[in-house]
Parts: sequence; C-alpha cells; structure tokens
Amino acid sequence: MPFAHDLRADAGRLIRQCRWLLAQNVGLAIFGTNSEANSLSVDEKIDLLDQLIDAGIDSSAMMPGTGLCALPDTVRLTAHAAKLRCGGTLMLPPFYYKGVSDEGLYRSYAEVIERVGDDRLHIYLYHIPPISQVGISIGLIERLIKAYPSTVVGIKDSSGDWSNTKAMLDAGWDDFRVFAGSEDFLLETMRNKGAGCISATANVNPAAIYDLFANWQSPAAQGAQLALVKLRRCVQQFPMIPALKAIVAKFSEDENWLRVRPPLVSLSAADCETLAANLSTLDFDMAGL
Amino acid sequence: MPFAHDLRADAGRLIRQCRWLLAQNVGLAIFGTNSEANSLSVDEKIDLLDQLIDAGIDSSAMMPGTGLCALPDTVRLTAHAAKLRCGGTLMLPPFYYKGVSDEGLYRSYAEVIERVGDDRLHIYLYHIPPISQVGISIGLIERLIKAYPSTVVGIKDSSGDWSNTKAMLDAGWDDFRVFAGSEDFLLETMRNKGAGCISATANVNPAAIYDLFANWQSPAAQGAQLALVKLRRCVQQFPMIPALKAIVAKFSEDENWLRVRPPLVSLSAADCETLAANLSTLDFDMAGL
Repeated sequence: MPFAHDLRADAGRLIRQCRWLLAQNVGLAIFGTNSEANSLSVDEKIDLLDQLIDAGIDSSAMMPGTGLCALPDTVRLTAHAAKLRCGGTLMLPPFYYKGVSDEGLYRSYAEVIERVGDDRLHIYLYHIPPISQVGISIGLIERLIKAYPSTVVGIKDSSGDWSNTKAMLDAGWDDFRVFAGSEDFLLETMRNKGAGCISATANVNPAAIYDLFANWQSPAAQGAQLALVKLRRCVQQFPMIPALKAIVAKFSEDENWLRVRPPLVSLSAADCETLAANLSTLDFDMAGL
Repeated sequence: MPFAHDLRADAGRLIRQCRWLLAQNVGLAIFGTNSEANSLSVDEKIDLLDQLIDAGIDSSAMMPGTGLCALPDTVRLTAHAAKLRCGGTLMLPPFYYKGVSDEGLYRSYAEVIERVGDDRLHIYLYHIPPISQVGISIGLIERLIKAYPSTVVGIKDSSGDWSNTKAMLDAGWDDFRVFAGSEDFLLETMRNKGAGCISATANVNPAAIYDLFANWQSPAAQGAQLALVKLRRCVQQFPMIPALKAIVAKFSEDENWLRVRPPLVSLSAADCETLAANLSTLDFDMAGL
C-alpha cells in the first residue's frame, strides 16, 4: 500500500500499481499481509475498494483481505467486497486470541458467512501461522467446505510448509482451489493440480511468475522455478514489505513508495543500495512500471 | 464483555458489573484482553464508553484498552478516551506484524501521541507477549518515558515473567507506575514499590485483591497472596474468558453472561459444574453482585 507524506493511503499510486499488475496477467490480492492491510482501518479499506472500482479496475480480478479480529468488522468489509462482486475475499481467522479451538474458528467463519448472507461471496481461507499465529487445520477446512460448499472455495497456504500444502492438494476436495502462499512452491503446486500461487513478490516479479504458471509443463519450468526462488531470496535478505516498496520505488523512480506505516520501518538508504546491487546481478526488471 | 443473544455488546449488564467492581474498590480496565475487547469494533467501543459515562460511571476510574493494529483506529479510540478524561488508556502495540523493531514500535506510540495531541492522555503500555506476540522492551519504555514523560505514565506487565516486572520496578523511572499483569505477583510488586495489579480475575475476586493491595504490609499478607493464587489457579483450569463468564453467570444467576463471541467458545455445562464445585472448596463468594 503506498502512503502519502502524512501516511494517508495513496489511492492514485495504488491504482497505477494495480493496472500494471493486471497488464502482467496477475490478479490483485489487495489487503494482504504484505499490502500492510492490517495497518489500515475498515473505513480506509472500503474507501480504497470504492476508488479502485471507480477507476475501472475489474472487481472480478480482486481478492481483498477481509478477515479481522472483530466479527462486526469482518462482516462489514466482507459484505462490501461481495456487493462489489470481488472475485473472492482472502479471509484470515480472528488473530488476537491465541490457542483457540477449531470449533471457535468454525463459528467465526460461519457467523461471517451467515451475517453477510450473499451468494456472491467467495471465501479463500488465509492460512499464515508464522504471522497470524492462528492457523487453519485440515479438519476445519473440511467442515467449512461441507457446510458452505459454494462459499468456501479455496485457500492460500502461507505456512511455508510444503507438506501442509501437499496434504490439502491430496485431500480430494472437488473444486476447492489451493494456492501456494508464495512462488517458492508454484511448480510443485501446479504439478499437484493446485490453482497457482498468491505471493507478495508478485508485486515486483509478476511476469516471470505468470510465465511459470502458464507454462509449468514446459521443459524450461524447473529452471524458471529456480530463478523465481533466487529473486525471492534476494528480496528476503531484508524485511519483506519495506524491501518490496524499495524495489517499486527504484523502478518507478518514485521515492513516495518507500513509506510504510509504523510499526514497520522503511529500508535505510544503504540497504536500498545493497538490495538494488544484488538485484542487478539477476535477470530482472519491472518493464512498463 | 457481556453479549446479548445476537452477540451485540450488552451495555446494561456491563454497567452493572462496573458498578459492582467500583463498590469493591477496584478500577475498570475495560477493553482489556479478557474483556474480549479485541472482538469489538472501534465503533462499538466508542459507543460503550459513551454509555458508561451516560450511566454516571466515573471516567477517572476507567482505563480502556485502545491499542489496535491500525494507526487510525488507535488514534480514534484513544482520542475519544482522552476527551472523556479516562484515568488512563491501556495501549497494546500494533500486534499483527511480528518481529518488528523497537524503532517501529516507538514510532507507533509516538504517532498516536502526536496525532491525539491531548494533554489529558495518560498511556499505560500493555506488555502481553503470550497473546500479542509483540512485546515492549525495557529500552523502548525508556525511550518513550524520555520523549513523553507526562503521557507515558505506566505499564501493565502480563509477561508472566517476574524477572521482567522486577527489572521495570528496579529501573528507577521516577513516577512511572508498574502494574503486575495479575494478582499472582501483587505482593512482590507492592514490596518493590509497584502500583498494584491489573487482572482479569479481579472481575470475580475484587475484594480479596483490593484487601491485599491495601494491607500488603500486614502479617497476614503472605497468606492472603497464597489464597489469591489458589483461586486464580482454580479459574485457570479452564480457558480464562469463558471461565470468568461462567463464574459471573453463576453468582449473578444470569446465564446471559455465558455468551462469548467467536473465536471463543463458552464452557460446557459439565465444565461449569466442575468449576463451581472446585470454587466451592475455597473461601469465595461474589457478595452483592
């Protein structure tokens, strides 16, 4: 999420980034972890969604994150996304209380679905235990699919644990769409009939990620996978969100992109230089940005 | 937080509970972790604060939790609490992003203080790493006290780690008020010139906790401390929030108190009975509730 000098969300720059991403054939997981969405209020997110729609961005390409700590907040944002006919919503479980039961998480999702009460709602569960510290078990997924088969339609697995993703892919859940949480597992996910990946680094490397997604059966796929991982590791030498912003700032020649909201901190000038130098050793650009 | 059958916050029952607590000489840490405050929206919390004030509850006895993930939310709720002249606000750091730096947390608190810009604001830092997973270091506290000595006035240490509380008590921070996060460490805190404790179990055992606070220098203090711990362990055999609600429901003869918002789950009838039976072995009642 780009921010203005007073830390207000910058809809203009967000719209430009979204247009560029769509031109690279990737969808828009706006309001994900690496969008700094958890540093935005519900009002800000509703306003940004409206501004994206007003700018002509196709809502069916959007998968906004809508899972928040408080039930009324999640219901309000999710209902708005459904009303706008977003392709899906990426839904964290409520993440403040820890050690909660699957029964409690089931009730959380069920309450949201019942209260939103909209056939246009398509939920992708968001499993990211390294950050949320509250995970989504295989048993919980099965129960949700059984109760709400046309609403709970997929998952983003950001556990970083391939065996977990594989277990989901092997579960035989009909049309349930399993996305890897990053391109690290894109090729394996495609080989196991997964839906693709949803990844923060798609903000800087969308063309190559899409290319592997589209051509995973080609002989060049393994090499392409290794190149994706190499670039991601380069970014991961620094905190992910400020590093991605530093890359966008560099290639768009727009330092406004460097800003983050606290508790995050922008990369230092020295770190920006190191990151740029490391990237320059790879076959990488952000053409058209 | 009591909830109605449709899970709306029940201001009437909250007001009655607050009046009873004040009559037992304890203050009101409304919107703490065990208030289920993180399951309430900002609008709900602002409305509840207003209803408490309208009911004649003294705002100087209130320390509402106001620290949320998103800067605009924290600013909005904190500004409202300051305007109402609440005795203090109990402020979590932003808790979604993990592994953030002290610099980022300093900027979070500083932004809130600058944006609220109200001399009536008195912040008590809320250190509860077992739940928030984002902690407040000694170094961060020192920096905040130095920058905002009349605003950052205390801390609730819910680390459960006495050596951490002791380090704060030993730091020599003039009038900075260190509260233990539970009555487990009340006597030791008082012996080390602490300010007292802020504890969820004060909702069911306020009189005995206040008694030890007031008479910590009496010969009976050690025995009183052990009795407090014994009762708390009895509650802690079950998940804290539903267990506390079960106790209030039993002594007020009002089953409405049993309700929780997901992702929490109420105690089963069998667990309620076990808890009540265990409590009956202790010298415990909730007179006047």
